[in-house]
Amino acid sequence: MTQQAFQDYYEDVTSYCYGCGRLNQAGLQIKTVWDGDESVTVYRPKSQHIAIPGYVYGGLIASLIDCHGTGTAAAAAYRQLGVPMDDPNYYFRYVTGSLHVDYLQPTPLGVDLTIRGEVVEIKGRKTVVRSVVYAEGVHEPTARGEVVAIQMPRAWVEEMVAGNS
Amino acid sequence: MTQQAFQDYYEDVTSYCYGCGRLNQAGLQIKTVWDGDESVTVYRPKSQHIAIPGYVYGGLIASLIDCHGTGTAAAAAYRQLGVPMDDPNYYFRYVTGSLHVDYLQPTPLGVDLTIRGEVVEIKGRKTVVRSVVYAEGVHEPTARGEVVAIQMPRAWVEEMVAGNS
Repeated sequence: MTQQAFQDYYEDVTSYCYGCGRLNQAGLQIKTVWDGDESVTVYRPKSQHIAIPGYVYGGLIASLIDCHGTGTAAAAAYRQLGVPMDDPNYYFRYVTGSLHVDYLQPTPLGVDLTIRGEVVEIKGRKTVVRSVVYAEGVHEPTARGEVVAIQMPRAWVEEMVAGNS
Repeated sequence: MTQQAFQDYYEDVTSYCYGCGRLNQAGLQIKTVWDGDESVTVYRPKSQHIAIPGYVYGGLIASLIDCHGTGTAAAAAYRQLGVPMDDPNYYFRYVTGSLHVDYLQPTPLGVDLTIRGEVVEIKGRKTVVRSVVYAEGVHEPTARGEVVAIQMPRAWVEEMVAGNS
């Protein structure tokens, strides 16, 4: 897939996220793209992301679902308007209002995980993204998740960051 | 608080968890103790655990709620029987069946977070733990979570680990 990832369109201030920020050197730096109407993130957990030896830590899976969801919500907002994510006339960034994960079976460590998401609702500032997690070599999904993403106006971001500098 | 933490009672094989394992050098190594009927974890996020600059990453909050929940479930199982967590006649370890987090307001980075949990249900192998996250200096909770923890018999743990070695 040669598309630019959703997260690579974010301006610097929203690019320090531990899960998906391209500027967070210690973070996961996940990348999400469209595959038709689904969004796709592929991530290989690191050796330390252990639940019990040989299996992936559930908190990491939750983190992947989280950033995959907010990234998908952002991309879907631009897509709905038919504009690219770097259109300067629009600013769509999302925070997580709620996160739900069902762990269906153990997720093996040492292989790629693929998170596939679909937008199930866009209503005002709220977007709901449902995701499924697959582990390479395992037929059935190992987890399912849902993120309720809330659009964060540019003024919020600026105020929050200003309040902390 | 001078109690030994719940997680310090786990044997080696269940002590590599990225969130709470004492043997995972790259992990969060959270520690949970009782405070009356509530369980308490205090954790100071690292500088890289950023959502936007100055605020804590939601995936980290989910991870804290997750391990706080499974640890509380384990401790509650021993407590219900009136035995210490190192009683060799019992083996109570839990995995996460589902995880839900509501993010109520931004969580500031750079201060201690306190997660307080209560056991709301113990039914067979299932224990439900509800948690509230407080950030030092912020009066109202910044997040609430619920973990449905599932007891994992010792044979499961042994089979899973054996299958991966």
